[in-house]
Amino acid sequence: MEYKVLADLQTPALVLDIDIMQANIDKMAARAKELGIPLRPHLKTPKSVHIAQMLKRAGAQGFNVSTIKEAEYFHAAGIDDLYYCVPFAPNKAARAVALVEADCLLTLMTDSLDGARAAIKAIEAIEAIEAIDGTVELDFTIEIDVDGYRSGAPLGSPDIVTAAKLFESSPRTRFAGIMSYAGASYGKTPDETRELTEQHLKALAATKADLLAAGFGCDIVSIGSTPAVLHATNLDGATEARAGIYTFQDLFQAGIGACTIDDIALSVVSSVISRQPKYNRFVIDAGGLALSKDRSTQGKPYDALYGLVCDAKTGKQMGDLVVSLVSQELGLVTSLSGLPVDLGAFPIGSLVRVLPNHADMTAAAYESYAVVAGTDEIKHIWSRTNRWDEEEE
Amino acid sequence: MEYKVLADLQTPALVLDIDIMQANIDKMAARAKELGIPLRPHLKTPKSVHIAQMLKRAGAQGFNVSTIKEAEYFHAAGIDDLYYCVPFAPNKAARAVALVEADCLLTLMTDSLDGARAAIKAIEAIEAIEAIDGTVELDFTIEIDVDGYRSGAPLGSPDIVTAAKLFESSPRTRFAGIMSYAGASYGKTPDETRELTEQHLKALAATKADLLAAGFGCDIVSIGSTPAVLHATNLDGATEARAGIYTFQDLFQAGIGACTIDDIALSVVSSVISRQPKYNRFVIDAGGLALSKDRSTQGKPYDALYGLVCDAKTGKQMGDLVVSLVSQELGLVTSLSGLPVDLGAFPIGSLVRVLPNHADMTAAAYESYAVVAGTDEIKHIWSRTNRWDEEEE
Repeated sequence: MEYKVLADLQTPALVLDIDIMQANIDKMAARAKELGIPLRPHLKTPKSVHIAQMLKRAGAQGFNVSTIKEAEYFHAAGIDDLYYCVPFAPNKAARAVALVEADCLLTLMTDSLDGARAAIKAIEAIEAIEAIDGTVELDFTIEIDVDGYRSGAPLGSPDIVTAAKLFESSPRTRFAGIMSYAGASYGKTPDETRELTEQHLKALAATKADLLAAGFGCDIVSIGSTPAVLHATNLDGATEARAGIYTFQDLFQAGIGACTIDDIALSVVSSVISRQPKYNRFVIDAGGLALSKDRSTQGKPYDALYGLVCDAKTGKQMGDLVVSLVSQELGLVTSLSGLPVDLGAFPIGSLVRVLPNHADMTAAAYESYAVVAGTDEIKHIWSRTNRWDEEEE
Repeated sequence: MEYKVLADLQTPALVLDIDIMQANIDKMAARAKELGIPLRPHLKTPKSVHIAQMLKRAGAQGFNVSTIKEAEYFHAAGIDDLYYCVPFAPNKAARAVALVEADCLLTLMTDSLDGARAAIKAIEAIEAIEAIDGTVELDFTIEIDVDGYRSGAPLGSPDIVTAAKLFESSPRTRFAGIMSYAGASYGKTPDETRELTEQHLKALAATKADLLAAGFGCDIVSIGSTPAVLHATNLDGATEARAGIYTFQDLFQAGIGACTIDDIALSVVSSVISRQPKYNRFVIDAGGLALSKDRSTQGKPYDALYGLVCDAKTGKQMGDLVVSLVSQELGLVTSLSGLPVDLGAFPIGSLVRVLPNHADMTAAAYESYAVVAGTDEIKHIWSRTNRWDEEEE
């Protein structure tokens, strides 16, 4: 079937406004240019080769991925220089080796001496390396913990230099540099974020100095988080800036002031399937699976519960309609203020679009995007990758 | 690759303990027998033909589905008598017609006069019906709202009889009966649930009486929710009982006393990828996408945050380890009590299993189950269906 307009789709379906996304991409590219730093966008948000190409055209110098499966998908599609910036699990060794053997420019990461040992042991155990090509070497970076947000080696730990040494000692690995993630920037003001970013830059510089003093190169000094890049005065000392969510934006980002509602490029189109005047609400066929149950906006200045309801044709907000509750396949829509909802405007079978709380989580429920540009006309259907396992599902 | 034990899988991966599930299935089958009512299990939880067959062997008399795609998947696999018990969106008319034309025993649902009109209009517009078979008729039920939990026509509304009349008047539809969903049973004590179920039975009986008085048959009187069936004294007047989550169970169900932790058949196996003594935690490669961001256990008597961490081999709980925070691909594991975590027991690359807050949401991130029976030995890999669109992704 040919899809001409959103009404041709089976609901729920994922919609992407290419004009809004292009503006987001351009804005971040300009910001990186202003800071004079190469931008390495994260593909864990879009997970689509078409969007990677748009990012590349806007000047992206390599990409981040969050799974080996993303690396496989993008490499197969001709997108290269991929930084798998999640601490490496040894069971992914064979797939990482296969990618590098296939000339994928892949960089890996761990955050500990034990992690380095486990990775090297698993990689050296892959028999195929010897058989296929004696020169295969996997590049590893080490994550530094600055703000306690997630993974990362303790700042100043001697293990960092020892791990670098291990990577340099194995014939199958190479030490490539360091990185940190300013995850704590979420929930901070722009001024606080600037300060946090300064701390990260200092920590990275000190770690690099330790490594250089110990005789190791440190080609990569990578810093990340969308707010860190948006609000930084400078990123001096870093060799690249990582940012991801900015391509789509979402209600969480709008809530922390990283964008406005109008900058959100992603939405879910769904059908009205029930109206209940008694409860001042209508019901749509987009529930917890279609929207995700992400409630990261909870307690934030702007909280639209499970999503903000918009006009299906224009994508524009309609008053204060929100998805107040979800079950697996149903979403209950009411007004945030409690003011009467004009149910006459939403006959059974009519469409609405819902803006997501967290774009990454919502997009993951779908295998493709219906791409529009300011209207309900479908310009393209773009595929995306999902999940973790090797393709053959 | 052949998967012999959980350690052969790429993490994160979905694990199903068939022994626990079989016990859950048997228990509910015995409960339905005790109540003397045909059991119609919901397939929205397992979404797998193998599990539908197990349910059938235990006496299931038909099934519920939550999407047209599930109906297509199960019908193609030879599982029939499917009740798509979500208010019907007119854009699904062609697929519903195609299923009935292919001799699928399919029952549909709406909850309003407008819903009936929209459904009939969309179904009558499918040109293929005339062309292929003049006798195709789609069965529709009407949902009654009793407890305000989600969709449903207001109790006693004359629209119910009028909608039945519309379905009987169209050459393409037939009125098949009524249903209600005791969703409000979640969050109630067993005694309160019994009382709620009584209210539902009374409402269904009154609605059936109205329909019979108006000259319409009412073959189906369907009542649902796992707690309603578990705690009911009787389900007199209903022709079938619907229940779903009981096949897998989850932490939410355990929290409301519908099962114990040992009854949870579903888990996610993941790898330790970082250890952080400073924060008394380790990090696994199962984050928000692998576990879901469902927080339905929040504020409930038993809250394990994003999931309860168990031994990878036995599936048994290990102290009070929980996933305290998730990002897209990372989960932070710590003790709920704050007591020191024995990080030495969790080297990088070792495995843990995580029990889900909400099984439906977690399972939806995967295309298959690694099926075990009390150990880490993989007995089968079973596929499942996901999403909404027609297959061709």
